[in-house]
Amino acid sequence: MTDNGYTVKPIGVVHSDLAGRQAAPHQGFEGAPYAWVEVNPAVAEGLEGITAGAEIILVTWLHQSRRDQLQVHPRRDLNRPLTGVFATRSPDRPNPIGLHRVRVMEIMGNRLKVGPLEAIEGTPVIDIKPVLPQSADA
Amino acid sequence: MTDNGYTVKPIGVVHSDLAGRQAAPHQGFEGAPYAWVEVNPAVAEGLEGITAGAEIILVTWLHQSRRDQLQVHPRRDLNRPLTGVFATRSPDRPNPIGLHRVRVMEIMGNRLKVGPLEAIEGTPVIDIKPVLPQSADA
Repeated sequence: MTDNGYTVKPIGVVHSDLAGRQAAPHQGFEGAPYAWVEVNPAVAEGLEGITAGAEIILVTWLHQSRRDQLQVHPRRDLNRPLTGVFATRSPDRPNPIGLHRVRVMEIMGNRLKVGPLEAIEGTPVIDIKPVLPQSADA
Repeated sequence: MTDNGYTVKPIGVVHSDLAGRQAAPHQGFEGAPYAWVEVNPAVAEGLEGITAGAEIILVTWLHQSRRDQLQVHPRRDLNRPLTGVFATRSPDRPNPIGLHRVRVMEIMGNRLKVGPLEAIEGTPVIDIKPVLPQSADA
């Protein structure tokens, strides 16, 4: 570790019909569409073992977010009190990491069709993890 | 985005009796201890709204990991076939991000007692998120 932090390198990118934040639902289970994740060929062998039908956690970098927000009104509802970003899923947070539990619908080489997914077109993907049946967790 | 990626800055650190990777269970639910998360004072107002008893997702940077591994034997068991890291929870992966679903046991200012947690002493924390009851997901 350095005082300047760590470097995250995208392993892929989201291709979605959602063009921008305004169009995106707050959560995947709120009517989000299916999307394709295109994994960089250089790391595609890391996909070995993922099968259609599996549930995975996509970890994204929410690249359009503000990193200087520490409190927000949840769901941008001004009637809800200011809340610490670590108690919310706001994309605006010091490290704008997104977690998305999705199902793999189809696999074509280095591309995975997944959903429902609220991440917008062009969102960098930084990790993919299996959902562990024992814990049903992140 | 740049070709060089994004910079993640730690928002805190894990204090645990687990001194190193050899001592750590593979998953939190496999007998891991409770630990303290010390959040940097500069971002501590982001904790507002987290309460004792809540379940949260700790997002960590698994700083002792190898980033050049694309396939591993799951659970370091050589009898299990080589598997893509994105189909496993191996800490060795291109971006060594850890996800840990834990319960908040106690809050003292900018410190949270959480567990069970398999992350080792000194692990940087890069984000904290609530578990959403609607999705029971990451």
